[in-house]
Amino acid sequence: MSDKNFVKEITNIEDDFSQWYTDIVLKAELADYTEVKGFISIRPYGYAIWENIQKYADKKFKENGVKNLAMPVLIPESLLQKEKDHVEGFAPEVAWVTMGGGQELEERLCVRPTSETIFSTMYSKWLKSWRDLPYLYNQWCNVLRWEKETRPFLRSREFLWQEGHTIHETEKEAKEFTLKMLDVYADVIENLLAIPVLKGKKTKTEQFAGAEATYTVETLMHDGRALQAGTSHYFGQNFSKPFEIKFQNREGKEEYAYQTSWGISTRLLGAVIMAHGDNRGLKLPPKVAPIQVVIVPVAMHKDGVKEKAEELCKKLKEKYRVELDIRDQYSTGYKFNDWEMRGVPIRLEIGPRDIEANKCVLVRRDNAEKIEVNLIELENKIENILEEIQKNMYEECAKRVVDRTTIANNMDEFIKNLESNQGYVKTMWCGSPECEEKVHELTGAKSRCIPFKQETVGDKCVCCGKPANTMVIWGRQY
Amino acid sequence: MSDKNFVKEITNIEDDFSQWYTDIVLKAELADYTEVKGFISIRPYGYAIWENIQKYADKKFKENGVKNLAMPVLIPESLLQKEKDHVEGFAPEVAWVTMGGGQELEERLCVRPTSETIFSTMYSKWLKSWRDLPYLYNQWCNVLRWEKETRPFLRSREFLWQEGHTIHETEKEAKEFTLKMLDVYADVIENLLAIPVLKGKKTKTEQFAGAEATYTVETLMHDGRALQAGTSHYFGQNFSKPFEIKFQNREGKEEYAYQTSWGISTRLLGAVIMAHGDNRGLKLPPKVAPIQVVIVPVAMHKDGVKEKAEELCKKLKEKYRVELDIRDQYSTGYKFNDWEMRGVPIRLEIGPRDIEANKCVLVRRDNAEKIEVNLIELENKIENILEEIQKNMYEECAKRVVDRTTIANNMDEFIKNLESNQGYVKTMWCGSPECEEKVHELTGAKSRCIPFKQETVGDKCVCCGKPANTMVIWGRQY
Repeated sequence: MSDKNFVKEITNIEDDFSQWYTDIVLKAELADYTEVKGFISIRPYGYAIWENIQKYADKKFKENGVKNLAMPVLIPESLLQKEKDHVEGFAPEVAWVTMGGGQELEERLCVRPTSETIFSTMYSKWLKSWRDLPYLYNQWCNVLRWEKETRPFLRSREFLWQEGHTIHETEKEAKEFTLKMLDVYADVIENLLAIPVLKGKKTKTEQFAGAEATYTVETLMHDGRALQAGTSHYFGQNFSKPFEIKFQNREGKEEYAYQTSWGISTRLLGAVIMAHGDNRGLKLPPKVAPIQVVIVPVAMHKDGVKEKAEELCKKLKEKYRVELDIRDQYSTGYKFNDWEMRGVPIRLEIGPRDIEANKCVLVRRDNAEKIEVNLIELENKIENILEEIQKNMYEECAKRVVDRTTIANNMDEFIKNLESNQGYVKTMWCGSPECEEKVHELTGAKSRCIPFKQETVGDKCVCCGKPANTMVIWGRQY
Repeated sequence: MSDKNFVKEITNIEDDFSQWYTDIVLKAELADYTEVKGFISIRPYGYAIWENIQKYADKKFKENGVKNLAMPVLIPESLLQKEKDHVEGFAPEVAWVTMGGGQELEERLCVRPTSETIFSTMYSKWLKSWRDLPYLYNQWCNVLRWEKETRPFLRSREFLWQEGHTIHETEKEAKEFTLKMLDVYADVIENLLAIPVLKGKKTKTEQFAGAEATYTVETLMHDGRALQAGTSHYFGQNFSKPFEIKFQNREGKEEYAYQTSWGISTRLLGAVIMAHGDNRGLKLPPKVAPIQVVIVPVAMHKDGVKEKAEELCKKLKEKYRVELDIRDQYSTGYKFNDWEMRGVPIRLEIGPRDIEANKCVLVRRDNAEKIEVNLIELENKIENILEEIQKNMYEECAKRVVDRTTIANNMDEFIKNLESNQGYVKTMWCGSPECEEKVHELTGAKSRCIPFKQETVGDKCVCCGKPANTMVIWGRQY
């Protein structure tokens, strides 16, 4: 950012979406590649977005009675193997610690890819009576999954997330909590990140290794690909039996607990980039933006301009996240482009003539609109505009979902739809994994979910043509 | 906590301090051992203390311009080896990942014991000009050090911490920042945790592997042993040279940056336990206590008692961290002891007669004082009492430091002092590492630091008797 006096070039979003994405990640300084293959560093600007997500979500968790704790980062191989489906799902992609303190370990330890096994072990140790229940615990931490192909935020060998793990007295309570946490995720993604979600249940093929049911919030990106943005799992007693998470129930009998887990991750930063960004760069929803207003003085070296800008900055900082750009080495035009590229929702321009007229100019990042504002009205005006931007960004994404959702009654339609208008494809489905697999082979699309809001878009399976009464939404995915 | 109707027994603090400590950790449910040897789980009550420390410290960091980011948890062996002293210090105690995704890795990766090397690599990549400086970055994360002997919080193979890493344009600025962060630590420990600190510089022998100078805040525990509570390091160009952290300076010439790092960890929870606890259990300073006021209704099943307690709880929650104990399975007496053991600063008792008289009773955890309070005055009274408790707890620790600090002019006095009154021993020191080593051999004490506040307590080295003009404070340590 130091010695070059031009805004870094970004690949055209329609030409090469994938390269556009990488450009944004690197040039907006959200993250960077490191010397550790497949591992990124999340830079301060990207991390500040994650902190805002954390703050919002953590508050919602706590309102639902969830408490945070910390579990070990390493898990012994024998623990990982206790639940059959789970180990099959995760063992191929873990990293193993085999040496510690200069010595070969007796049993190798994996760096957690997820922590069901270690939570289950501790819950088994702690739980005695129904009176102790529920345990509603969560941890914010890092996890490792040894992916072959990696992309910053979307698929990284290490990512940051929260993993909530709860145990309950009854099946009903556990199921309800699974869905309650899915609602929290929908809240975070829709209200904070301004991205509409599609809520539903994953098919058996797509569910979490070891789960009885997996629920998901799916999002649709600029290019019409889907991104799974958060999942909440109901385990029944799948873990509580092998791990012996038992309690004395109200009748004095021994019973196994009912369990859930749920997670969102730094993947959400990928969602924000790909749902909102454009050819000018990143576009951040005001509620999650580390900088909501950037002040760029015009003709900065004229008498009193810098001072006025500083005064406004100080004042606005009481209420908003504000940055003042008085860098000497860049032109005003460069700064305008630079902050647009970094996705700051409002740019505030103030120059000698503005000061004379006691006004300034606000420029919206979402629609480039310029608004002259009297300084007296500034604070309220900014509040209104930030709200409008947040709303407008949500609506733009919602419109995309409508525009890019099609219905297919057979595979020809399915393929044609995806070719002409990539996005969600709604179909009926007979419920067989074979049809699901075949759809994937023919189209590259996977089932996103069985939406909670079911519609009857036909009466035959899109694949085999047999009678079907379940609607599935499909899409190619990140 | 479920089926036993008595308060868990705690070892007498004077009989066996070490066992007393373990009892508190486990019985107050601050942490627990796990199936991974040397690794603990920090339970919700302990973690909530850590969250309060994080919130306080993070705010101070940000006020000083520090931004958070995230670096990879794994570090390639070749990176670790770039700074000679650093690798010598840390290599023996790291854990190595040798397999990932089912394959042997080409180069083994250590789980970070600290992240100077990876920060330095990224700084080298990012830094171009003096205009970019300073970088004031920090991360809150987990680190691993393969300790042979472990104790919850004090010495654990995994711990949580923050590690700040900064680079600066000049030596002067970097040195000032090192000390500024030490001041932040002193603030956290004295004002939040109510533990007085001794500030000073570590001797060469005790300084961080790779540092030019290490500064420390030392604390004194109940048994007179010292605990290093936070350190801040000045590196000069020790890392910037091998890692090539270069920039173009104001004269257009290439220069190496000046670097610092600084950290505090979950070790601070050990400090809180050991500085304040007593035979009734944990004793938490109000500012960091997850629960500041616990409401225990007396004769809970009498008409209107529970309702009144709930009403008070709701009201007080607007201002304080409050818990209402309406557990059925325990007696009131049990509850009193239980919350004392968990260190809650104020217990609020309310029963039928109190309600009639429109009053309640507050009981202070720090000195067991009972205070009748009219309900109208309750909120203000609680504020005052919490402040008093915070102050009183600090003063008790400060008194201990005075009582347990002795002066020694020779080794006989040194040994006698430690035997009769374990604590800090002030001596003059000639500056030779050999004398330092000999003191350790003879007494088990190590130099805590060369205090910033120097005094002349003699004119000869306590060990060799040669002329000396440096005062050192020594102590046995955790």
